[in-house]
Amino acid sequence: MGRKLEQVLETERWGKLELRLYGPSEGNPYSDVKLNARFHYRHRTVEVNGFYDGEGQYCIRFMPDTEGMWTFETQSNVQELDGIEGSMLCTSPQPGNRGPVRVDKQVHFAYADGTPYYPFGTTCYVWNHQDEQIEEETLTSLRESKAFNKIRMCVFPKHYDYNLKEPVSYPYEGSLEIGFDLTAFNPVYWRHLERRIEDLQRLGIEVDLILFHPYDRWGFANMNPETDDNYLRYAAARLSAFRNIWWSLANEFDLMQDKSMQDWDRFFRIIQENDPYQHLRSIHNWHHPGIHYRSNLHWYDHGKPWVTHASIQHHDLHFVTEWRELYKKPVVIDECRYEGDLNHGWGNITGEGMLECFWRGTVQGGYVTHGETFLHPENIIWWSHGGKLHGESPERIRYLRDIIEQGPQLGATAIDFQWDTASGGVDDEYYLVYFGTSRPAYRILDLPEGIKFAIDIIDTWEMTVTPLDGQYEGRCRVDLPVKPYQALRIVKAG
Amino acid sequence: MGRKLEQVLETERWGKLELRLYGPSEGNPYSDVKLNARFHYRHRTVEVNGFYDGEGQYCIRFMPDTEGMWTFETQSNVQELDGIEGSMLCTSPQPGNRGPVRVDKQVHFAYADGTPYYPFGTTCYVWNHQDEQIEEETLTSLRESKAFNKIRMCVFPKHYDYNLKEPVSYPYEGSLEIGFDLTAFNPVYWRHLERRIEDLQRLGIEVDLILFHPYDRWGFANMNPETDDNYLRYAAARLSAFRNIWWSLANEFDLMQDKSMQDWDRFFRIIQENDPYQHLRSIHNWHHPGIHYRSNLHWYDHGKPWVTHASIQHHDLHFVTEWRELYKKPVVIDECRYEGDLNHGWGNITGEGMLECFWRGTVQGGYVTHGETFLHPENIIWWSHGGKLHGESPERIRYLRDIIEQGPQLGATAIDFQWDTASGGVDDEYYLVYFGTSRPAYRILDLPEGIKFAIDIIDTWEMTVTPLDGQYEGRCRVDLPVKPYQALRIVKAG
Repeated sequence: MGRKLEQVLETERWGKLELRLYGPSEGNPYSDVKLNARFHYRHRTVEVNGFYDGEGQYCIRFMPDTEGMWTFETQSNVQELDGIEGSMLCTSPQPGNRGPVRVDKQVHFAYADGTPYYPFGTTCYVWNHQDEQIEEETLTSLRESKAFNKIRMCVFPKHYDYNLKEPVSYPYEGSLEIGFDLTAFNPVYWRHLERRIEDLQRLGIEVDLILFHPYDRWGFANMNPETDDNYLRYAAARLSAFRNIWWSLANEFDLMQDKSMQDWDRFFRIIQENDPYQHLRSIHNWHHPGIHYRSNLHWYDHGKPWVTHASIQHHDLHFVTEWRELYKKPVVIDECRYEGDLNHGWGNITGEGMLECFWRGTVQGGYVTHGETFLHPENIIWWSHGGKLHGESPERIRYLRDIIEQGPQLGATAIDFQWDTASGGVDDEYYLVYFGTSRPAYRILDLPEGIKFAIDIIDTWEMTVTPLDGQYEGRCRVDLPVKPYQALRIVKAG
Repeated sequence: MGRKLEQVLETERWGKLELRLYGPSEGNPYSDVKLNARFHYRHRTVEVNGFYDGEGQYCIRFMPDTEGMWTFETQSNVQELDGIEGSMLCTSPQPGNRGPVRVDKQVHFAYADGTPYYPFGTTCYVWNHQDEQIEEETLTSLRESKAFNKIRMCVFPKHYDYNLKEPVSYPYEGSLEIGFDLTAFNPVYWRHLERRIEDLQRLGIEVDLILFHPYDRWGFANMNPETDDNYLRYAAARLSAFRNIWWSLANEFDLMQDKSMQDWDRFFRIIQENDPYQHLRSIHNWHHPGIHYRSNLHWYDHGKPWVTHASIQHHDLHFVTEWRELYKKPVVIDECRYEGDLNHGWGNITGEGMLECFWRGTVQGGYVTHGETFLHPENIIWWSHGGKLHGESPERIRYLRDIIEQGPQLGATAIDFQWDTASGGVDDEYYLVYFGTSRPAYRILDLPEGIKFAIDIIDTWEMTVTPLDGQYEGRCRVDLPVKPYQALRIVKAG
């Protein structure tokens, strides 16, 4: 006890402090050695778990949320790791660091610094399992497109059509040939994952990290409960201090037939207990309740207290408002369908169709995730591998994102813009009305009386904004082009 | 008793015999005089009601279903109409007369002569209430388009947006100014209606006659029960002998708030009891159950025994197969939305959207009804007034109709063509697979083993058929154009 680090450590607010210690490498350090640390700021104590990083190295990571001087000490069942004390100065965040994303105003999101965050997600399930060149290309595509600020990606490699190559490395020691040692994590894999999480952080992209998924030939989808639980604790210990982490308990959890609802409840609780920062948590379905008048029997209940937001797969964005009412939480349609031309039913919609999903969900105050699945001669398909974007929707999603980021957080409004539209806004202030493939020559609007509004016609496909002359109030008529994919932006006149 | 007509009357099978008699015109002949006739063929007796046609004229109409010599006699509470006897020779039907349409094979339709009938409907609610020129134009449009073999139209005039003119005549004596005598029908109106029904019959078009609807300023939507019932009996007596009549109890019955489910039950029974030929009967809804996970609480139960087929308004054709399973009856989507550019949510879809509804519903073995609502400088809009067709869908609906009439009656198949398609067929014989806006570059099909099939790619929008080289069986791959609105026709090789 009482070994004190002389140097005062330093990290910015919502940065990542990393304390690297040396200890035993014999036996199985992953299971034999317990290590955690307590960080203190005035009356507060935050306890974080350490983890073994191979070659005798132990690591403790911490993301402070308050500026000022913190102290800490370690605890371990191994003497050389136990009772190490120190202090840390938490400085102001650098520009671009707004902290982790939280739920805001019940059904929206904001960064910890209070800036609203509007998720515009994309999906590259195993882009982090590709070779260096493709991975860099993916980062370049994300940077250049400017469309996306969230990505869904997996810890485990993926076995599925077009995904038959072995990954570069595995989360566990071993290989498909010789088998995996599920008691020994592979630090090389995890360090690579962390490098990619930081690359994404620099691009302002949140990582919706998928902890389990059913597309597996290595046995990672069918580990025993103890192994599952240890995996979750290890992932939480390593990754919680990255401010851009979200936890997606699973992709298409209901296709993992070996796991029960009780397992998923337990997994949520493990993540909840082992992530000191309470990053966002949800779980993503395969079955589409409602298509056949079925109840949502198969869905994980997003109303459970440890679920922070609803992560939903559904092709019909009509239901966004209803789901938000049901769960009283943010609704993210993390999979609708994919722009592309694959054989698969979910993988061949048009750019128009993808963009329609975005507009329809977003104007209601929901959030939508993109995906792209064009056949490629070398099977490099954005949805799984990353690489290049080929579709027509991303630039138009960016255009929508600009519009949304200029406006307020959207919700249901008192105004009925007719059922052929999707709409949302802030009553008496701001409305977005999306017509999709409906193309009326005009619309009668019942705007509030006594408030003057300016109206823009937005061609969501052509990406043009046409301000209408004059001001509008009460019952009024707006003439529209007889053309699909138009929207109205109705803003209280300044 | 015993006055016998000397001349043997004659009509073709499923033709309309009309017996015109003279009787009292004083009092109220509509309510005071009872008249019916019994037609006999060997052991069978068919009883039909007569009706008063104004100016002392009484009429009995009869549609014989069996060739040969029939006899008949009248019954009346008025001596001069009672006990008139005669005989009628029923001859072979003329070409084009296949008899009334019946339910066939539980979920389809056929003419009485056994020829399958595939409804391709359109909607011109009050085309029969316009002036002579527009009405003739409507008939010309129907004849030239060749797309439609069924029309939905109303007995009562319509009061609604774009429908504010007074009709040429009313079913009752009177006018909006002086009021209507609901005990006295207006023969001029009914003769005109009958002339139009016969015009349609000559064009091979079935008349889905709407008996009640809510769009009313004359009081016809709010008559008392006795008046409603008399109206239905009179309509049945006048119109049942037209072989191309179907009874649509109402358009959007659930918007007629003065009428209860018990009223609709009674109306169905009155029609059932007063139509000796049991023409097709259904009722059409406004509310769209299912959109919000609601049960189908508001729908009239199409499972009731007097409903011959489900006449449904719904914008999502996905449910056709499910409804057919639910009701075990033919499913006709008598309103999805309308091709056009109206303000109203239901009245502004594209030609592509309208055609997609047709293909999606039809390949499943359901039936779909067209409508068109383009703004017009003189408010002559097909959906209500008839006139000219302006849309892009009718010629493409005709193209689909040709394809369907060349094939078998369609049902659910054992083959899963993936959920992004709508499909149907006859197992091991014939399949239609429609892709809508999905546009895969290829599809893997799991056709039956041991049977060879020829496959055509149909571009439903461009109206082209491209036969693929070779023959297909078992698991096979079909390359497709990466383009929306494609379909596959898969036919057992001859």
